[in-house]
Amino acid sequence: MDIRDKRIAILAPVAWRTPPRAYGAWETVASNVTEGLVARGFRNVTLFATKDSVTKARLVGFVERGYEEDKTQVPPVSTCLHISKALERADEFDLIHSHFDYLPLTYARLIRTPMLTTIHGFSEPDILRVYREYKDTHYVSISDADRDPELPYVATVYNGIDLSNLTFRQQPGEALVFLGRIHPDKGLHLAIETAKKADMPLLVAGIVQDRAYFDHCARHFDGTRIRYVGPVDPVQRDELLKEARALLHLNTIPERFGLVMAEAMAAGVPVVAMDLGSCREVIEDGRTGYLVHNVEEAVEAVRRIDRIDRRQCRQRVEANFTIDRMAARYEDVYAEIFRREAEKH
Amino acid sequence: MDIRDKRIAILAPVAWRTPPRAYGAWETVASNVTEGLVARGFRNVTLFATKDSVTKARLVGFVERGYEEDKTQVPPVSTCLHISKALERADEFDLIHSHFDYLPLTYARLIRTPMLTTIHGFSEPDILRVYREYKDTHYVSISDADRDPELPYVATVYNGIDLSNLTFRQQPGEALVFLGRIHPDKGLHLAIETAKKADMPLLVAGIVQDRAYFDHCARHFDGTRIRYVGPVDPVQRDELLKEARALLHLNTIPERFGLVMAEAMAAGVPVVAMDLGSCREVIEDGRTGYLVHNVEEAVEAVRRIDRIDRRQCRQRVEANFTIDRMAARYEDVYAEIFRREAEKH
Repeated sequence: MDIRDKRIAILAPVAWRTPPRAYGAWETVASNVTEGLVARGFRNVTLFATKDSVTKARLVGFVERGYEEDKTQVPPVSTCLHISKALERADEFDLIHSHFDYLPLTYARLIRTPMLTTIHGFSEPDILRVYREYKDTHYVSISDADRDPELPYVATVYNGIDLSNLTFRQQPGEALVFLGRIHPDKGLHLAIETAKKADMPLLVAGIVQDRAYFDHCARHFDGTRIRYVGPVDPVQRDELLKEARALLHLNTIPERFGLVMAEAMAAGVPVVAMDLGSCREVIEDGRTGYLVHNVEEAVEAVRRIDRIDRRQCRQRVEANFTIDRMAARYEDVYAEIFRREAEKH
Repeated sequence: MDIRDKRIAILAPVAWRTPPRAYGAWETVASNVTEGLVARGFRNVTLFATKDSVTKARLVGFVERGYEEDKTQVPPVSTCLHISKALERADEFDLIHSHFDYLPLTYARLIRTPMLTTIHGFSEPDILRVYREYKDTHYVSISDADRDPELPYVATVYNGIDLSNLTFRQQPGEALVFLGRIHPDKGLHLAIETAKKADMPLLVAGIVQDRAYFDHCARHFDGTRIRYVGPVDPVQRDELLKEARALLHLNTIPERFGLVMAEAMAAGVPVVAMDLGSCREVIEDGRTGYLVHNVEEAVEAVRRIDRIDRRQCRQRVEANFTIDRMAARYEDVYAEIFRREAEKH
């Protein structure tokens, strides 16, 4: 049987619509996987998501709207109903591909359809108890770095990004750019320090997730050399990247994947990234940016950023981080799962 | 087949040990049902609870300790693992009797064993979405008052209490007694006002659940006429009830059941209760206490409290609110469920 005739159920989270209107990382990936499979010719894909979601696949929803967009909902109530209503139909599918964290795993032994979970992150170490208990299902990691040593994985599948609104530009801009949630994890304070020491302008964009930290950083915003431009939508992001000589991604905790690095490279912007977590998988050190370990190294790196060929940045994304590339990898993962399941029976 | 040979699984919560060492209302009821069934001669009862639980039935646990007693656990993780590990063994049982709120319902259609849920309360109105979705399972209410009009119920089964450490005393004490969580819902401020207007001493016992409210009430504690004695264990509770002329239960929101009213009556103590929710089911107005609607009526009621025959109080508990009475009612409920399930097939 052609794998593209297999009946695939994609289980998205229901915090936001799929795809989300603005923020919502896991819903974004669930959407990209779904649309990527349809674009590759999968003929039987069903997306389980909020009822107001948008997809070229078949949409099945039980929850009207994302609970983050409708505060009358108690999130665990919407969550468990969304999962149970989907899994009660498990027999209609050949594979259930969950992007929904750990809870669906606890239903896995009560259904016959194999379940694949893309582990988008371990929100708390204690959730490993669930993943370790349901090792007989199938796991995918989103980077080699973001793996738990006790879990078996079928593969790492990098996130794919939508290249529309990411215009490749051969000509570098003048500024350093920080793009991400304003939170200590993302190291804006290190980006500011780097820009000052390198004596280069810095443009800062992103949603404020930690207000006190934002206020701490905002003392340095002078409206000219170091400037905060607020959150950006995809069109504004493209304009921002036009100004970029390099992206500063000086994360302070291990990155799980780091979509923004791929986005910057897609626009031809090299990345100076802290060598923590997945950064060394997303950028190619010395070819699409530089891995650093501290501010001094970051300053050094931005000083030699013009040595990076911006076309290499774009090419790395096209070869590794497109939606189609991701869908192709999942096609291989699905084939491997069907092979393993057939062996069991 | 003798119903006492049926394989019954009792699913307790895992916030606390079953039975709890101190606080833990739902675990207490789960324990009382389990032990009550065993005492009635049920030969095949399995209690799913924390591993450190204590029971005369067969104990099966997956979670080591209650998550309220071990803060390293993320409660939703322990919760879903406890439920899934129990329900994966559903085929070993003829009936699963859940005391675990709404989450187990979302697994119910994936197993073959019928599920009965004792609805101990609707913690949030939104959880009704789950109960309404799984109406094809079986529900028991803990009072006629605590019913949702859209849900079908097999029966109301009142909670049964353990009569040990509840000594019946013919001779009334001198004081009014408040016993319960110190929280506005329980109306301590109304009890204080009533005691003052009736010019009678008041003894206050219970855990502090709302610190600001406690401080507000504490202005009236003078160490003699109005006195706070702290939380009480069962032995201390018995001593406290010895001092009681009446229990003041001037709840400000509808009571779901009201164990403390049954406990007081077991000791022979009449109850003055707000006519809200289940109070009119637990006490018999004019025979084991008085239902009131405001402080004025409460003052009137305590003035004529000696008209209540304290033996009637004890007898009401023995006839309605013992563990064996509860277990006997559940035996009837189980029989009704087996009858209904047999009809389906």
